[in-house]
Amino acid sequence: MIFPHTYSLKEIADIINGKIIGDANFQVTGINEIHKVTPGDITFVDHPKYYKKALNSAATTIIINKEMEPPEGKALIFSEDPFVAYNHLVAYFSKFEKTNQMVHPDAEIGEGTHLQPGVFIGKSVKIGKNCLIHANVTINAPAIIGNNVIIHSGTVIGGDAFYYQKRDNGYNKMISCGRVIIEDNVEIGTNCTIDKGVSGDTIIGKGTKLDNLIQIGHDTVIGKNCLFASQVGVAGTVTVEDDVILWGQVGVQKDLVIGKGAIVLGQSGIGKSLEGGKVYFGSPAKEAPEKMRELVNITRIPEILEKLKK
Amino acid sequence: MIFPHTYSLKEIADIINGKIIGDANFQVTGINEIHKVTPGDITFVDHPKYYKKALNSAATTIIINKEMEPPEGKALIFSEDPFVAYNHLVAYFSKFEKTNQMVHPDAEIGEGTHLQPGVFIGKSVKIGKNCLIHANVTINAPAIIGNNVIIHSGTVIGGDAFYYQKRDNGYNKMISCGRVIIEDNVEIGTNCTIDKGVSGDTIIGKGTKLDNLIQIGHDTVIGKNCLFASQVGVAGTVTVEDDVILWGQVGVQKDLVIGKGAIVLGQSGIGKSLEGGKVYFGSPAKEAPEKMRELVNITRIPEILEKLKK
Amino acid sequence: MIFPHTYSLKEIADIINGKIIGDANFQVTGINEIHKVTPGDITFVDHPKYYKKALNSAATTIIINKEMEPPEGKALIFSEDPFVAYNHLVAYFSKFEKTNQMVHPDAEIGEGTHLQPGVFIGKSVKIGKNCLIHANVTINAPAIIGNNVIIHSGTVIGGDAFYYQKRDNGYNKMISCGRVIIEDNVEIGTNCTIDKGVSGDTIIGKGTKLDNLIQIGHDTVIGKNCLFASQVGVAGTVTVEDDVILWGQVGVQKDLVIGKGAIVLGQSGIGKSLEGGKVYFGSPAKEAPEKMRELVNITRIPEILEKLKK
Repeated sequence: MIFPHTYSLKEIADIINGKIIGDANFQVTGINEIHKVTPGDITFVDHPKYYKKALNSAATTIIINKEMEPPEGKALIFSEDPFVAYNHLVAYFSKFEKTNQMVHPDAEIGEGTHLQPGVFIGKSVKIGKNCLIHANVTINAPAIIGNNVIIHSGTVIGGDAFYYQKRDNGYNKMISCGRVIIEDNVEIGTNCTIDKGVSGDTIIGKGTKLDNLIQIGHDTVIGKNCLFASQVGVAGTVTVEDDVILWGQVGVQKDLVIGKGAIVLGQSGIGKSLEGGKVYFGSPAKEAPEKMRELVNITRIPEILEKLKK
Repeated sequence: MIFPHTYSLKEIADIINGKIIGDANFQVTGINEIHKVTPGDITFVDHPKYYKKALNSAATTIIINKEMEPPEGKALIFSEDPFVAYNHLVAYFSKFEKTNQMVHPDAEIGEGTHLQPGVFIGKSVKIGKNCLIHANVTINAPAIIGNNVIIHSGTVIGGDAFYYQKRDNGYNKMISCGRVIIEDNVEIGTNCTIDKGVSGDTIIGKGTKLDNLIQIGHDTVIGKNCLFASQVGVAGTVTVEDDVILWGQVGVQKDLVIGKGAIVLGQSGIGKSLEGGKVYFGSPAKEAPEKMRELVNITRIPEILEKLKK
Repeated sequence: MIFPHTYSLKEIADIINGKIIGDANFQVTGINEIHKVTPGDITFVDHPKYYKKALNSAATTIIINKEMEPPEGKALIFSEDPFVAYNHLVAYFSKFEKTNQMVHPDAEIGEGTHLQPGVFIGKSVKIGKNCLIHANVTINAPAIIGNNVIIHSGTVIGGDAFYYQKRDNGYNKMISCGRVIIEDNVEIGTNCTIDKGVSGDTIIGKGTKLDNLIQIGHDTVIGKNCLFASQVGVAGTVTVEDDVILWGQVGVQKDLVIGKGAIVLGQSGIGKSLEGGKVYFGSPAKEAPEKMRELVNITRIPEILEKLKK
C-alpha cells in the first residue's frame, strides 16, 4: 500500500508508539508485508530467523523487536510486538468503511457501465466504461476495474486475504490493505471469490475469462487471456502467466508460477511451479503423457503378480 | 431460441447485413448453435472443417463465410464473419434487460410462491406455485421454474454460458440466449450456479435435489430424482439420466452421458460417458470394484520389489 | 430442538393425529432425529430394522408404525407414517418465517456489531458484540453468533440440511429445525455455506478461520482454532476436533471424526475417521509419508516390467 503522501519516520513511530532507531526525519512512502516491499516501504519482522531477510529487503524502514544498528540507508522502529504494530499502521491508513448504501457515493462508475440491482460497491472502488455488473455482486474496496468487464451474479471481489499468524491464544489476522485490479475485457462467472492483496495487488489480466465458483487468493497475479473452468481454486501469491488454461476443479498451491500457455486438466493439483507450453494432469500433477503412462502401468500390476507366481 | 414469430430470410439478412444465397422469402423460425439446431433454425459456420457438418445439419439457413450453392431445401447467408453475425442476431432477439428493480415487473410469480428479501428476478422469468425462494437468490432471465421448488440463498440461476471463440485478439464470447428450466419439486442448495443454455435449455428434472455450491453448465440436462452432493461440478452439454447420485466434489466433463441410476463416489472425475446402474470411483473414474482392486494392487508394489531383489 | 415449554403426550399426539400407547400425561420436552436424541425427546422410527435402536435410544417418546408395548419409562405414538408425523411436528414447532425485511425485527444484534448493506438476518438470529457482517451475507434462523465474528460477503449461514428419505414417489425432505452456532473470534470467508442441524446444532468452534467457498454440512461440529483453506467440503454429522488444518479442496465424508491437530493436504478425500496429530494425503487419504512412498512406488513399475522381461 502506498500512503496518500510521504510521512516522516517520527509521524509513523508516533502512530504505533514505537521507538525510532535512526533519523526521525527519514521518509516513508508506503507499507508492505515482506514479500511485497519496495524502496520507501515500511515492513515488520518479529522472529530472529527472519531478521536478516527483512534488514536486507528493499524496505527502508523495518519495525523490529530487537534494538540494533540499522543497516546503511535504513531506519528501524523498535516495537515489542511488530506484528501488532504493523496491523495497527495498516488499520490506520486503510480504515474499513462502514456504510449503509449499496453503492458508496465515493465510488467511481464509468460511462456506459450498468449495475443491476443488489450490487454492493465499496468506497474507493473505480469501475471503467461499458462494464456490466450483474445482480447481487459485491465489490469491496479497494478495487480497480477496467473497461468492458462483465461480472456475474453472486461474485465477491475484494474479500480479505486468508492470512493469519499463529499465537499462543489462537490465530491473529494480518489485516489486508491491498487491492484487486481487474483489467479490460475480463469476464468473471457467478459466485466467484477474488481476494484483495495483503498489502499488494491481486490482478486478473486483460481478456482473461473465469467460469463459476472460482477462488483466486490474495496477491495472486493472473496473466492475459487465461481460461479457468468452474470450481478452480488458486491460492495466494501465485503467478499465472498469459494464455494458461485450467480445467474444472484444478487446485493450485500458494507461491507458484504457472508458465505461459500451460494447460492443466481437470481436478489436477499443482504443488510446484509448472513450465509453460505443456499439458499437465494428476494430483500431484505431472506432464500428462507421463501421468497417462502411470495410469496404464498400474493396470499391469495383476499381470506382474501373475508372472511372479510362476 | 425460437423467435417470437417467423421471419423471412430477407429480414434476417438485413439485420446482419448479410448476402442471401437462395430464396429471400425463405422462412426462419429460430436461431441455434450447431449442437442444438432443429428445422427452421438459422445457425453459423466459419471454418471449412465444419462446412459439411453445418450444411448437413437440421438447420435450414446457414450463415457461412464462403459463397456456394445451398443444399436442396436450404438457404445460405454469406458473411465475412459468421460468428460476429450470429452473435449480432442473438443480441438482437435476446436483448439483455437492464433494470433497477429487484423483481422485474414482467416476471410471473405463481400463487403461494414466496420470495424472501434480496431476491433478484429478471424479465421473462416464470415461477410456478408454492415455491420458496430464499434471501439473496438471483434468477436471471430467461428461466422457467415449476411448482413446489425450493431455491436456497445465494444461488444464481441463469448465468451466461462459459463459451468463447479463440481469436487473434483474445477470446470472443458467444452470447447466450438459452433458458434454464427447473421442473416441479426440485430443491437447490445455497450458493449454487446454474448457467443458461447457449441457445438451448439447461434443465433440472422433476424431484432432483442439489446440495450446496454445485455448478451446472450450459445446456446440461439433469434427469428426474437425482441427488448431487455438495461441490459437484457438471460442465456444459452433459446429459445425466434419472436417479443418478453424484457424491461430493465429483467433476463431470462436457458432452457426456451418465446413465440411469449410476452412482459416482466422492471426488471422482468423469471424463467419458458412464453406463447406468453401476457404481464408479476415481479420477479418472472406473467401476468402483475395479478401482478398489487397483488401490490394493498399488500397495503390493513393495512386495513385488522385494521378490525381484531375491 | 427443545420445545419452548414442556408438552404432555396428549398435546403432541393431537397435533399429529397419533394414537397414544402409554400415559397421556407423559412429558415431552423436545424433538430430535434418532442420532441426536436426549431424554425428554420425541423421535420417530418407520422401519422394523431400526425399531430396536429407536426403542433403546435416549428418546422417551417414539412415533412408530407398529402397535406394541412401550419399553419401561417410555411412551409410544402410533402413526401410519412416522416420517410424515415427525416432519409435521417439526413444522409445527419451527415454522419458516416469511418476511419482507432484510433484518428481521426480532433478531438480536449486539453492541458494536455492524451489518453492511444487503445483509439478510432471519428471525431468532442472535449476533454478539463487535461483529462485522459484510455485504450480501445471509443468516437464516435459527443461528447464534458470538462476539468478534467476521463473516465475509456472499456467505450463507443456516441453509437447510441436505437430508431426504427415498420414497416411491421420489425424495421426501426431512425438515430441518436445528441451529447454527458460531463461537467467538471465528472468521468465515466469502461465499461459504454452513447448513443448520437437522434437529441438533452445527457448530464452528472458537477462533476457527474458514477461507472462501467452503461447505459445512448439517450437524457437523468443528473444534477450536481450526484452519480450513478454500473450497473445503465437509459433509453432515462430522466431528472435527481442535487445531485441525484442512488444505484447499479437501473433502470429508459424513459421520467421521478428525482428531485434534490433524493436518490434511490439499485435495485429499477423507472416507474414514483420522487419528489426531498426523499429516494425511490422497483420495482416499492415507498418512502422508505412506502415500508419498506409494506415489514413488508407482514410478518403479516400468523398472519392474523391464526386469521381468529379462
